[in-house]
Amino acid sequence: MFLDVLKADAASIEAHLAKVMAGDPDLPVIHGMRYAVSGGKRLRGFLVMEGARLHGVPETQAIWAASAIEVIHAYSLVHDDLPCMDDDDLRRGQPTVHRKWDDGTAVLVGDALQTLGFELVLDPACHPSAAVRADLALSLTRASGRAGMVLGQALDIAAESAKAPLTLDAITALQAGKTGALIVWSAEAGARLAEADPKPLTDYASALGLAFQIADDILDVEGDETTVGKAVGKDADRGKATFVSLLGLKGAKSRARDLVAAACDALSPFGDRAETLKQAAQFVISRDT
Amino acid sequence: MFLDVLKADAASIEAHLAKVMAGDPDLPVIHGMRYAVSGGKRLRGFLVMEGARLHGVPETQAIWAASAIEVIHAYSLVHDDLPCMDDDDLRRGQPTVHRKWDDGTAVLVGDALQTLGFELVLDPACHPSAAVRADLALSLTRASGRAGMVLGQALDIAAESAKAPLTLDAITALQAGKTGALIVWSAEAGARLAEADPKPLTDYASALGLAFQIADDILDVEGDETTVGKAVGKDADRGKATFVSLLGLKGAKSRARDLVAAACDALSPFGDRAETLKQAAQFVISRDT
Repeated sequence: MFLDVLKADAASIEAHLAKVMAGDPDLPVIHGMRYAVSGGKRLRGFLVMEGARLHGVPETQAIWAASAIEVIHAYSLVHDDLPCMDDDDLRRGQPTVHRKWDDGTAVLVGDALQTLGFELVLDPACHPSAAVRADLALSLTRASGRAGMVLGQALDIAAESAKAPLTLDAITALQAGKTGALIVWSAEAGARLAEADPKPLTDYASALGLAFQIADDILDVEGDETTVGKAVGKDADRGKATFVSLLGLKGAKSRARDLVAAACDALSPFGDRAETLKQAAQFVISRDT
Repeated sequence: MFLDVLKADAASIEAHLAKVMAGDPDLPVIHGMRYAVSGGKRLRGFLVMEGARLHGVPETQAIWAASAIEVIHAYSLVHDDLPCMDDDDLRRGQPTVHRKWDDGTAVLVGDALQTLGFELVLDPACHPSAAVRADLALSLTRASGRAGMVLGQALDIAAESAKAPLTLDAITALQAGKTGALIVWSAEAGARLAEADPKPLTDYASALGLAFQIADDILDVEGDETTVGKAVGKDADRGKATFVSLLGLKGAKSRARDLVAAACDALSPFGDRAETLKQAAQFVISRDT
């Protein structure tokens, strides 16, 4: 059930992004943008779509916010993969943007994707109320910028040059910014579009985001590069503190299961209607990619 | 007169940005953000402030849009200066961000500054109407993204790998994106804040933006690195087509003067009240930095 919904939402987002970028000129930066936003699990976009369905928001509106978050996520991956950042050659099973083109093109592709993300939530078709569009965009700046994702990345870089390895609390705070903030924004977006209280979805996504990152750390140890679609074993090679290095493999798996249970509990106000979101939480810790 | 206003506006913007970033954590990326937004002529910010004054918009509102455009401009400079882009060591007379820190920090600093630019125009203090804030932010995505500044940069990169040098029309189109779009946005912002017709300021700024770029090309030939605050002579070294290489030094100067005259003509609806903007246009082609 969840995987069918995820697949259908991914296809809708793919089609929407193709339409939005259809008229853009024939330039490497534009090709790089299209390349960078293709593929991926679209988990963040699914969270937007499912949160919108829970609140009775039309799909024609939700698709703009879902596409926006996937574009913002793609920008962060293109820049993260650069040689001066994580230096990755492979992403979603394909060469990274800077490997397929060059570093300068990858910088511009990421920059233009970030701008596009804001353009999409600010498009009048995203919601008839300018107040809702402005709220979505402002909350997106907070989730992605110096108070969210970029803060997490800055803490990550600072940790690499620090002498002492990170504590569990420090890694949890770092990940809440680095991957958590966009996941929380995604889950909340449907409530924002409906001008409803986002609280249950905030709690769901906060637990889900952390479980997601723990699962990523486990995949880095147990995963297979071909299946995962990106390099694995990098954290251990660098001697980097992760949830696995701090909790052990068994402890990390147990922690991830507890978080998924907490995520599902947070959905109780929605009753049976939240079944797909519960399945999504289970998927996050059982995925192999 | 104009230079006094420019100086006062620059000080207001500097103070506003210091206040906005005051609570941010003690991390290299945050230090880099503060460093990158300090200094500079603040011409774009001045255009916002002066356009706002012409329309009776309170300075307490205009300062948000003025700070936003300076932050977006700063993001573009930090990324442009990277080794994989223009590879510059000097900016505003100081080491560039990647020289003072490293390339990875510079990528993140630019990313966070772009986000901050949108955060500033979307702040409720920027304007009481969410519709105005959403309009400012959406027009800023168009001025800075794949239809504006980044498009200009993409055309610039494509031109470098093309065999034939650019024609005058092609350079004019390229510059309208690369530097013109943000200058036009700046001049229009006051009208947008007042929900007035931006047309006279659009025409003023379109001519001004092109004159500004021609003056930049002239400075690259005639300027002194210490005074200009960045490397000069780079275009000629690279055999790059510029307004000077296409029109000659005398022809370029004459073209810039004509554009300034056209910019001033566009201000006629404002009568004497546009005197400071006219002086700004004169300044743009007589500056040595």
